Amino acid sequence: MAERIEAIAIDGLGEIVPGDDLPSLIADAVAAASDILPLRDDDALIVTQKIVSKAEGAIVDLTTIEPSPVAQEFARRHDRDPRQVEVVLREAKRVVRMANGVIITETHHGFVCANGGIDASNVGPASGSIVTLLPKDPDASADRIRTAVRERLGQDVPVVVSDSFGRPWRLGIVDVAIGVSGLRPLDDLRGKPDADGRVMRSTVRAVADELASAAELVLGKTAARPLALVRGASFMRGEGRIDDALLPAEMDLFR
Amino acid sequence: MAERIEAIAIDGLGEIVPGDDLPSLIADAVAAASDILPLRDDDALIVTQKIVSKAEGAIVDLTTIEPSPVAQEFARRHDRDPRQVEVVLREAKRVVRMANGVIITETHHGFVCANGGIDASNVGPASGSIVTLLPKDPDASADRIRTAVRERLGQDVPVVVSDSFGRPWRLGIVDVAIGVSGLRPLDDLRGKPDADGRVMRSTVRAVADELASAAELVLGKTAARPLALVRGASFMRGEGRIDDALLPAEMDLFR
Repeated sequence: MAERIEAIAIDGLGEIVPGDDLPSLIADAVAAASDILPLRDDDALIVTQKIVSKAEGAIVDLTTIEPSPVAQEFARRHDRDPRQVEVVLREAKRVVRMANGVIITETHHGFVCANGGIDASNVGPASGSIVTLLPKDPDASADRIRTAVRERLGQDVPVVVSDSFGRPWRLGIVDVAIGVSGLRPLDDLRGKPDADGRVMRSTVRAVADELASAAELVLGKTAARPLALVRGASFMRGEGRIDDALLPAEMDLFR
Repeated sequence: MAERIEAIAIDGLGEIVPGDDLPSLIADAVAAASDILPLRDDDALIVTQKIVSKAEGAIVDLTTIEPSPVAQEFARRHDRDPRQVEVVLREAKRVVRMANGVIITETHHGFVCANGGIDASNVGPASGSIVTLLPKDPDASADRIRTAVRERLGQDVPVVVSDSFGRPWRLGIVDVAIGVSGLRPLDDLRGKPDADGRVMRSTVRAVADELASAAELVLGKTAARPLALVRGASFMRGEGRIDDALLPAEMDLFR
């Protein structure tokens, strides 16, 4: 284990708009961040979902949306935008809960989260009707960023695409991984001895989620900061996929 | 927001046993960690639950436990220790789910977690029958540590007691806060403008949980490392309580 880890914000990306070559822009920003160079084997790049979605055009203009009666009724009862409710329902594979003004869905990726990860904050100036969806394939997004950084800087740096999720029994949101490239999202210690030599029965560290949370501490929410490097953390390299970190349906006790 | 945060492991605590004056030992360990001194206003100390529970005697010797028929049957069906199942049930205020070999309970503190936070790993050498319970009042535990550090070092450093929790739809565990002193566990940005000047409707950062997760990246699970400093993170000082971060029952969609 590392003695010290750092999460370092990388500035200089500027406003991202649909069609931007985000992997290339990220590689530029990393190359320009001379204080973090050279890159190291224990580095990981954390990129927030919002800029990935914007660059990939995973956005919807609510003025184009005709809400269904169900969306209209829910929105009316809970003082929400019916068009946004409609988009949440359209993006869902399954509605997990729809009560108390909260919509929790399972997305096509298998993420269970509030509003299907659809969000209206920080989508750009004068964009009152624009919401972002989750990227279609966040692992592929992470792959492309990793490739661009490797080609530019000659270092294979794992990439995590992060987003802010709530939790069923806790208030507040934490950043978790929604896409990964170049690392295993879980660090499976089962079968390894603990500090006393006892075999640990159930310790699987959700290391990609913790990398995302550590990055959030330096990125925050109000600042337009979408990119961080986490240096020194212990994780396993490999061709992991975010699906590795999602609970199989047959184990789900809260469907 | 900080440009850079660090999580730094603090060594030198040694094996903690029941009756140890943990706040004083932690103050000693911090005072001896010369590379992190002087302490700063943006420091927070993260202490893992296990050593707090051990020092406070929140442990149970399973050889003293007589499992109930319910515990025996569940343990038999799922290849678990019936005495540990019994302790989990005794410590519960409410059983949330008991299926697939998993017991999820609500503890008297209001935490909803697997096995009521009861754990057998890393409890010390030759202690095959010892399990740790959660500390009785983790906020009070954090208060005592904060006081000891302030008295020893003259700096009021917020303290988070952390533990590893699973999540309903994700595999793996992440460290979260189970007790706090000197900081607000939630950083409530609602009503503040985002980077585009739009008022954010629902952004409440669970900053104490993210501090715990960042610390876990440097503490890990196999190493006997229970203490870390997180430096540079943005959080709000104040007399927060962990209860501030727990979802009220009337908002719970997954009871």
